[in-house]
Amino acid sequence: MELALGMAAKTAGQTGINPAVGCVVVKDGRIVGLGAHLKRGEGHAEVHALAMAGEEARGATAYVTLEPCSHYGRTPPCSDRLIAAGIARVVVAELDPNPLVSGTGMAKLQAAGIETEAGVMEAEARRRSEPFRKFITTRLPYVTLKTASTLDGRIATASGDSRWVTGPEARAAVHAMRHRHMGILVGIGTVLADDPSLTTRLDVPGLHPVRIVADSALRLPLDSKLVRDGAAPTIALASGAADEGRAEALRAAGVEVIRCGIGASVELQEAMRLLGEREIGSILLEGGGRLNGSMLAAGLVDRICVFLAPKIIGGEDAPSSFRFAGFERMADAIELDDVEVERYGRDVCISGKPAAGGGIG
Amino acid sequence: MELALGMAAKTAGQTGINPAVGCVVVKDGRIVGLGAHLKRGEGHAEVHALAMAGEEARGATAYVTLEPCSHYGRTPPCSDRLIAAGIARVVVAELDPNPLVSGTGMAKLQAAGIETEAGVMEAEARRRSEPFRKFITTRLPYVTLKTASTLDGRIATASGDSRWVTGPEARAAVHAMRHRHMGILVGIGTVLADDPSLTTRLDVPGLHPVRIVADSALRLPLDSKLVRDGAAPTIALASGAADEGRAEALRAAGVEVIRCGIGASVELQEAMRLLGEREIGSILLEGGGRLNGSMLAAGLVDRICVFLAPKIIGGEDAPSSFRFAGFERMADAIELDDVEVERYGRDVCISGKPAAGGGIG
Repeated sequence: MELALGMAAKTAGQTGINPAVGCVVVKDGRIVGLGAHLKRGEGHAEVHALAMAGEEARGATAYVTLEPCSHYGRTPPCSDRLIAAGIARVVVAELDPNPLVSGTGMAKLQAAGIETEAGVMEAEARRRSEPFRKFITTRLPYVTLKTASTLDGRIATASGDSRWVTGPEARAAVHAMRHRHMGILVGIGTVLADDPSLTTRLDVPGLHPVRIVADSALRLPLDSKLVRDGAAPTIALASGAADEGRAEALRAAGVEVIRCGIGASVELQEAMRLLGEREIGSILLEGGGRLNGSMLAAGLVDRICVFLAPKIIGGEDAPSSFRFAGFERMADAIELDDVEVERYGRDVCISGKPAAGGGIG
Repeated sequence: MELALGMAAKTAGQTGINPAVGCVVVKDGRIVGLGAHLKRGEGHAEVHALAMAGEEARGATAYVTLEPCSHYGRTPPCSDRLIAAGIARVVVAELDPNPLVSGTGMAKLQAAGIETEAGVMEAEARRRSEPFRKFITTRLPYVTLKTASTLDGRIATASGDSRWVTGPEARAAVHAMRHRHMGILVGIGTVLADDPSLTTRLDVPGLHPVRIVADSALRLPLDSKLVRDGAAPTIALASGAADEGRAEALRAAGVEVIRCGIGASVELQEAMRLLGEREIGSILLEGGGRLNGSMLAAGLVDRICVFLAPKIIGGEDAPSSFRFAGFERMADAIELDDVEVERYGRDVCISGKPAAGGGIG
C-alpha cells in the first residue's frame, strides 16, 4: 500500500480534478502489476495494473489507494475490471470521498465473491486526497495559501522590494506546488508590481495551471505576461461594476473574464463557486497581504504554507503577509492544525490547516 | 569530551560570568574522575575531577572543555593542580577565549612535560562558550533576543492582548533560557502593560537573573512587581534627562538607577557598556518591538530566537516583533547565520546569529 500511495503522490498534479490513485497487484508475495492514474479520461490505476499482471491477476490481491469506481464515467468501472480479471482480494486505503458513490464499488466486489478490506493506511491516503474530497463534496476548489515572509512577517520592504525573500530551494518547492494545483490565484496588485508569468518553470510543457487574477476593476494590462505569453489560460475575476469595455478588450486578448457578484469588489465566495463550476478543483493562492487576508477571513482557505526566511527587514510600513481586520483577543486567532515544519535550504516552511478555515474537515 | 561538554551544558547559568566547564579524568580506559565548575569563586571543574580521582590521577588523561587557567584569580591556577596530581596528558576542546591568557595554560602544562592536545570537539565547545568569549573580549554583555510572535509576525493583537502567543512548552523553554542568562532586559512599555515579575519560575531560589528595564523617563511604578517583590535585583536604565526625584524614589525602593548617556533617551551602546562594567555578561532581551528593533539596529544583538505560534492574528495595527526603520532593499535585510529550528509543543523556534549584529564572530 505504501508503494501504491507513493505512485499516487508522484502523479499528483497531472490528473486534473481526478484524484491521483495508485494500484499494486500482488500474487504469492510477488508484485505482478503496478499502475497509476496518469491522465484524466484515460485508464485508471487498476486498468494499468491489471494489464501488466495479465493472467497472473487470477487469484491475486489488488492494493488500491482509493475504492474502485462502480459507475460509468469517462472510463468503464474498475470494479467490473477487477471482477473480470479474477482478482481474489481487494484492499483499499479509503472509500470514495464522493458521498453519492462511496461504498458502492466495495459492495459490487463483495457481491462478486471478492474478499475486501478498507482503511489500510487511511490517514495517509485521506491527507493526499483532501483536495479531491473537498471539491467532490462542495464543488468549491481546495485552496492552499502560500506566502513567503521574513521572520518579522514582512513580504517586502517598506519600499516594495520583494526579490528575493526566500532562497532557491524554497522557490523551487513553490514551483513544484504550482504544478500540483489546477489554478494559481494572485491579486492585481502583484501583477501590476511584478508582471509575473506564474508558470511552474519545471520544463514540462502543457502542465501549467490556469492563472487567475482577482482584479475587481479589470486593471490587468493588455501587455502583461499573463495576457500575452500564452503559457497557460488566464482568468480575470472582475466585480460586477467593472467596465464592460475593459472586459471586451481582455476577452479579445484571450483572457476569460468572470464577474463575481454585483458590487464594486470581487465577491470571493462567489468567485470560488464559479471557478469550481469550471472544474478548477485546487488553487494555489499566492496573493499579497490583502487578498490573503480576505480569503482567510472569508473561510475560503484550506491549508496555509508560510515560507519563512531567517532574516529581519524591519520597516513600520513594510507589507505583512496577512492583511485583514484581525482579532481583538489573542485567544481568537486563527489556529493551524496538522502543523508540519520543513526546511528548504536556509528557509523554513510552516504549514497547517486553519482551524476556522473553509475546509470541510 | 562529549561527557565533559554535557556537564558544562547542564551547569550553564550557575557560574556567573565564568564559563561553564566540564572535566573528565580517564585512566586505562576507565573514568576515574568527573567535575564541573559549579559556582563562581568555588572550585573549577578540574579541581573537583582531580579530587574524585585521588591517587588514580597519576598518569591519567584529563579531558577539559576549556584550557586550564594558569593565573591566580579567585582560585589557584588549575594547570598547577593538574601538574601536581601527576596527570600525563591533557586534552582540551578550546583554548581560553581571553586573549590575555589564551595558550598560557597549555604552555605551562607542556613545560611540565605533560602531553597536550587542543581542538577536540572545538566547534561545539565554542558555541557553548560564545557568551563568555564575547564578554571577556569586549566587556559587553552577550545579548540573546527572544521574541514570540504569530505566523504573521505579531506579538499582540491590535488592542494589545498578548496572552498567550505561544503554548506552555515554549513558555517553559523561555524560563529555562532566563535561568541561563545573568540579566533580563525589557522595555518600560512591557512593564506598564503587563507588570511582569521576570523570574525563571523554575523553583530554584537565588538563581533569578537581574531584571533590567529600559526606562528613559523613569516611569517604572513604585508598586510594580519588579520594584516590590524582591525576587531579584532590579536595574532601571534611565536617560540623562530623567527626573532626579524619580531616580531617588526608585533608589529608596531598592532599584539601581543607571543613567545612560546625556540625552532624552537611553543610549543603548552606553547602557551595554555600563552593564558589562557591573559584570552582567549575558542578557536575555525580551523587549517589545521598539526595544528589539533599536537593539538590533544598533548591532547589539548576538543571537535571535523567534518563537512562532502556528496561528494568524491579522490586524493592520497589531504590533510587530521588530520595530525599526528597516531597509529599502530585501537584499539588505539582517540575515541570520547558524540557523536552528526546534519545535516546542505546537510552536516552532527559529534561532540564529544576526550576520550584521553585535557579535564578535
